[in-house]
This record gives sequence, C-alpha cells and structure tokens, in this order.
Amino acid sequence: MAQNTFDIAVIGGDGIGPEVVAEARKVLDAALASESAEFTYTEYSLGAEHWLSTGETLTEETLQALRGHDAILFGAVGADPLDTRVPSGIIERELLLGLRFNLDHCVNLRPTRSYPGVVSPLRGVDEENPIDFVVVREGTEGPYAGNGGLLRRGTDAEIATEVSVNTAYGVRRVVEDAFVRAQARDKHLTLVHKNNVLTYSGDLWTRTTAAVAESFPDVRWDYLHVDAATIHMVNNPQRFDVIVTDNLFGDILTDLAPAITGGIGLAASASINTAGTAPSMFEPVHGSAPDIAGKAIADPTAAVLSAALMLDHLGLGEAAARVESAVHAQLSQWAQDGTTGLSTGQRGDAFVARLTS
Amino acid sequence: MAQNTFDIAVIGGDGIGPEVVAEARKVLDAALASESAEFTYTEYSLGAEHWLSTGETLTEETLQALRGHDAILFGAVGADPLDTRVPSGIIERELLLGLRFNLDHCVNLRPTRSYPGVVSPLRGVDEENPIDFVVVREGTEGPYAGNGGLLRRGTDAEIATEVSVNTAYGVRRVVEDAFVRAQARDKHLTLVHKNNVLTYSGDLWTRTTAAVAESFPDVRWDYLHVDAATIHMVNNPQRFDVIVTDNLFGDILTDLAPAITGGIGLAASASINTAGTAPSMFEPVHGSAPDIAGKAIADPTAAVLSAALMLDHLGLGEAAARVESAVHAQLSQWAQDGTTGLSTGQRGDAFVARLTS
Ligand SMILES: CC(C)[C@H](C(=O)O)[C@@H](O)C(=O)O
Ligand SMILES: CC(C)[C@H](C(=O)O)[C@@H](O)C(=O)O
Repeated sequence: MAQNTFDIAVIGGDGIGPEVVAEARKVLDAALASESAEFTYTEYSLGAEHWLSTGETLTEETLQALRGHDAILFGAVGADPLDTRVPSGIIERELLLGLRFNLDHCVNLRPTRSYPGVVSPLRGVDEENPIDFVVVREGTEGPYAGNGGLLRRGTDAEIATEVSVNTAYGVRRVVEDAFVRAQARDKHLTLVHKNNVLTYSGDLWTRTTAAVAESFPDVRWDYLHVDAATIHMVNNPQRFDVIVTDNLFGDILTDLAPAITGGIGLAASASINTAGTAPSMFEPVHGSAPDIAGKAIADPTAAVLSAALMLDHLGLGEAAARVESAVHAQLSQWAQDGTTGLSTGQRGDAFVARLTS
Repeated sequence: MAQNTFDIAVIGGDGIGPEVVAEARKVLDAALASESAEFTYTEYSLGAEHWLSTGETLTEETLQALRGHDAILFGAVGADPLDTRVPSGIIERELLLGLRFNLDHCVNLRPTRSYPGVVSPLRGVDEENPIDFVVVREGTEGPYAGNGGLLRRGTDAEIATEVSVNTAYGVRRVVEDAFVRAQARDKHLTLVHKNNVLTYSGDLWTRTTAAVAESFPDVRWDYLHVDAATIHMVNNPQRFDVIVTDNLFGDILTDLAPAITGGIGLAASASINTAGTAPSMFEPVHGSAPDIAGKAIADPTAAVLSAALMLDHLGLGEAAARVESAVHAQLSQWAQDGTTGLSTGQRGDAFVARLTS
C-alpha cells in the first residue's frame, strides 16, 4: 500500500514567503480531501529575519530535523536589499545552496509554460503558440562546487580561480531523470552545454547523454551550445520539450525561460533528491518581495503550482493534476472576466473553490 | 601626423565569408576616398576549407605574418555541419580562439542595436523604443582558459574539471575599456557576473569595477547577476548602455543580445588588443552559412558594420561614422520601399552609392 501520511516541513521564510505558502497549504488540504492521503505540517523559521534574530542561517540541528520529513514546502527568503545588516549573499549561499547541497538536490526542476491571460514579451508566443517545456538543471556540482580561490588579493598580481567539478555519478543521474521526463512528455530532449570550449566537462556531459540515450530509443535528443540555446528561446521557444543542463547554464536558462513566458512571478520549481535519501523541496521561483510584504497582495500562484509539483513527487499525481488544472482554469476565468486586484487570500480561496466544486 | 597607410590582413574564410568581406572592402575603399588614409590588403587562406586541403588550422608562420598587419578583417569560418571530415570544434578552438588568445584580444566588443526595418521578436521594442547597447566581453581568460582535465575517463568514477582563471591584470584592462566606452556613450555601465555563487572571481570583478569607477565619477555603474541580466534583456533591454562581463557570460549575452534585436545576421563585432601589441580583428557575428554560399544572396551588412568598427579602431572615426550612417540610411530606405531579394553585390553597391553621393 502506498504511504498515506506525509510529514511536510514548511519554511515560509521572509517577506511574502509565509503569505503565499499559507495559500499553498489551503490548496493542498483541499486537494487531499478526496484522497486517502493526509499531510501534517511542521513550521521552521529560517531566512534573513531568522538570521537577524539568531545569527544562524542553517544549523546542523535544523538540517537533521528537516531530514526527517517527507518533503519541504518553501516560500521565499532574502532581506530587503536596502537592509545593510544582512551581508550580501549569505542567505543565498548558506541557506538556499546549503539545503540544495546537504539534501543532495541533484535535480533542479523548472517547468516553463505560458499562462492564461499572461502576455509573453515575445511576439511569436500566443494562445495558439504557447511555451511548454521543462528544464532539468543539475543542482549539486559544476561551477557551484564552491571550489576555487584568490591569490594575492588586492594586488596587481591577483589571481582568482573557480573550479567547475563534474562527475560521471553526478551527471548521469540528472541525465537519466531528464530522459524519464522526456519520455513522459513529447519525447524530445535537448542537452545544453558549451562543449566546444569547456571540452572536459562538455565531453563528459555529451558522452553521458549519448550513453543514457541508448536506454530510451523512443526519445530523440539533440544538442545546443548555451549561447545558441538563448537564441532559440527568443526565436522559437516552442522547439523545446525537456532541456538538461549543468548547474550554471541551468541557472541562466531558468531565469530566461520564465521571462519569455511573461509569467516569471508564476513559475514553480522543485529541488529533487532523486535517490530519496533526503526530502525534496518545492518553491516558487520568485523572491521574498519585501516591498509588497504584509499587504496581502502577493500572488500565491507560483507557491500553489510548486505544491502541485510536491504532490506529484509524493506519488499523488492525480491530485497534482487536479491542482494544476484548477489553477489554469481559474487564471483563464480571471483573464476572460478582466479580474485584477485580488488579494492573496482571495486567489487562494478561488483555487480551493475550483478544486472542491 | 596620424598614420595614413594601413596594412590590412583579410581572412575571408569559408562559405559566405569571402563574399561578404568583398563587399566590406568595396565600402572601405569608398569611405577612404575622401580621407588622406589608404588601405593595402593581404589575403590569408584560413578556415575549414584550408584545413581540408592543408591539415593546418593556424601555423606559427601565419601568426607571425598576421602580427605584421595593422588590423584583420575577418569573414566567417566553419565547415558544413554535415561534412564529417572536419572534427567538431577544431576550427573554432584552434583558429578563432587561437587568434583571440595569441593576439591578446582582451576586449571582445559587440554593439547591439535595433536596425531599420528589422522587427524585434520582443513586443516592447519598436522604432520609438529601440535597443542600443554595447557588450564589452573579456576575451582571453575566465572559463575559456582551457584549464582543466578528465580523470578516469569513461568509468563510473570519472571526474571532469574546468578551471576559470581570472587575473587583476586581465580584468582591469577590460573594465577600464568599458568605462571609457560608457563615458563616450550614455555614461551607464552594468557589470554582469554571478558574484553570489562564483565568489572568488566575482569578488575580483566587483572590486576591480568599484576601483576603476573612481576614475570615472561621471559614469554611474550598477551590478546584475547574469541570470537577472537575461530577464532585463527580455523585459527592458533599453535599460542597458554598456555591459562589461567575463568571457563565458559574455558569450551567452552576446548571442542573446543580437537575438532580441531581430538582427542577429546584421551584428558586427571586434576583438581588440587594447595595448596595440598585435592587430585587432573585425568580424560579423554570423557564421559561414554553407547552405547559402556561392549563391550571391548573403547579406554583407554585418561585415560592412564590422569594417566600420575597424575604421573607428584605426583612428578614422569620421569615416566609421559615415559608413554607419550610410548603412542605416540605406536599410531605412529599403524598409520604406519594401525592397527585398537583393544580391550581395547589389547591397554592397548601394552602401557605396550612399557613401559617395
Ligand atoms: C540565489 C542563487 C544562489 C540561486 C542560484 O544561483 O541557484 C538562484 O538564482 C536560483 O536559481 O535558485
Ligand atoms: C565559436 C566559439 C568558440 C565562440 C566563443 O564561444 O567565443 C563564439 O561562440 C563566439 O561568441 O565568438
């Protein structure tokens, strides 16, 4: 029998994070009402505010506690950029990347699609020609390894190095995951790298993709240099189905990708531990938006769609699909009616109403 | 007295390369007719065809000969992708990067602007809201250093590394060049990096930019992470004036940048040796386009605009400005008349006619 009680860690974080996560929880509860599954939630205080009051980003104790959960629902973290008390980058590195690396979130999954009522900045994208692809970004190695150094800092003879570390182990599991996803979609995988210049890591990525492809004869795959991939994103984003790429190229492409849909505030993401040795994490791509926090005007859609990715990951694919279609139906409705200016809670309630009607 | 005879090396290359360079030479000669300067040209055979007939990409002798010139006018190189006789990447690495590294082309300059009659793929860009910025990309170090390795190739325990090498010497000269250009334009410089993750090289770039900025108090500068920069390119490319960035980020952004103008086939570039210890090189961003080679239908505009960058670099700024405005006036004219389907030579002749009328 499938597991039916799931123990969810909730990290609301800073700014609008807790506000949007609250709506995601409402929607999750509504989605589960007709399932035999049940969620329990444990809240964790983490982020810039937490750092300001405790001086801690992510302790060993917190990590241990998080490991005991089935999944992590995440809001957003980050101080007001004008708040100079928080050292630049510390929350991103020690908390966000800290979770990714410690919980071995090797697959950073970012679905990108056109949203009803959201106009793409691209002329070539409209309701008849929507965007719908998924980026599988490697999350635990590459240029993010933190490997490098500075010699003779501050002198004319200074040298700074950054070492991108890529392993067969790390690349293979991500490529395999991407092929599985391509097989369940339009059976088209695109490897993005820069193998004409980064010849060592490019060789590893290209060889690994060719090798894994043999087990997926029904998936066709092609290759693009990262520079050329950005051109295709702008000129013909409909060509993409599943993209697999390294940590840094993935970082760049997964900001460009939601930007071309026009819905960067609506994009969801998942950081997945594919081996199941630690909980995976689900978070909106948007930030903590301190400028609009506390006003109940944040859009919870990205958090709700991230919760749908969590349902799917936990084996509740049917509930995930119901949440996704409720969100899309409701966004269509609002677009059709010209509805704007709803509060965070009104949006969440509308998704719940769709789900339970 | 300023130098008035310039000794130009011409590398037509493969495919449409020689065709577009021939038009660029016509335009150069017309532009110089009213100047006291004179160009002599020496043709060099290099590229995929040359490799097929000689097995050589770039010999020490050729490099030595090229060093004797005042500048290099370059067409395009690269075999037909279907021609399996040419090993993938060899021409790019040994010839293109070979020239860039051996001739110390530290500034890779890529102006990006809207062209008359060319519709941008972005809804937010039109004649009233044109794109007009310049990317100053570092060209001789960073992740392009070729530093790295493979251990245990082909086994499950394989590791591939790539070392990005960044020096105060290398970063400073590029940042200085970018500030000078910003000062001559709209006095706004944007540093693009990923200093929250690539902390060593990011620290060097950020500190260097802040230090150089002190000598340019009239230039305001800001910073964007590379991922965020791609969002701005799509949502508000008009915010950019001069971008300075590292070799790999620059590679990515300078494909995205011409793509958002809609005129990727019209973009010019320069690879500049800022110290004047070796000739700089001027080339269209487009490739050798073997599919349309020999048909006299290639558009020479990018080669002509690259020749204008060469004029400017050689101190012939007035002639450069005349070529640029002739090209823009002629493109406007064609757009207005709905003229299409001109041959390569007809286009070149029209630019010449504009210049000499
Ligand atoms: C905040 C930053 C460290 C992070 C990254 O670079 O991965 C972010 O840009 C992302 O894409 O999740
Ligand atoms: C061909 C390739 C090596 C080159 C680069 O990566 O620099 C090209 O993409 C460019 O931008 O000039």
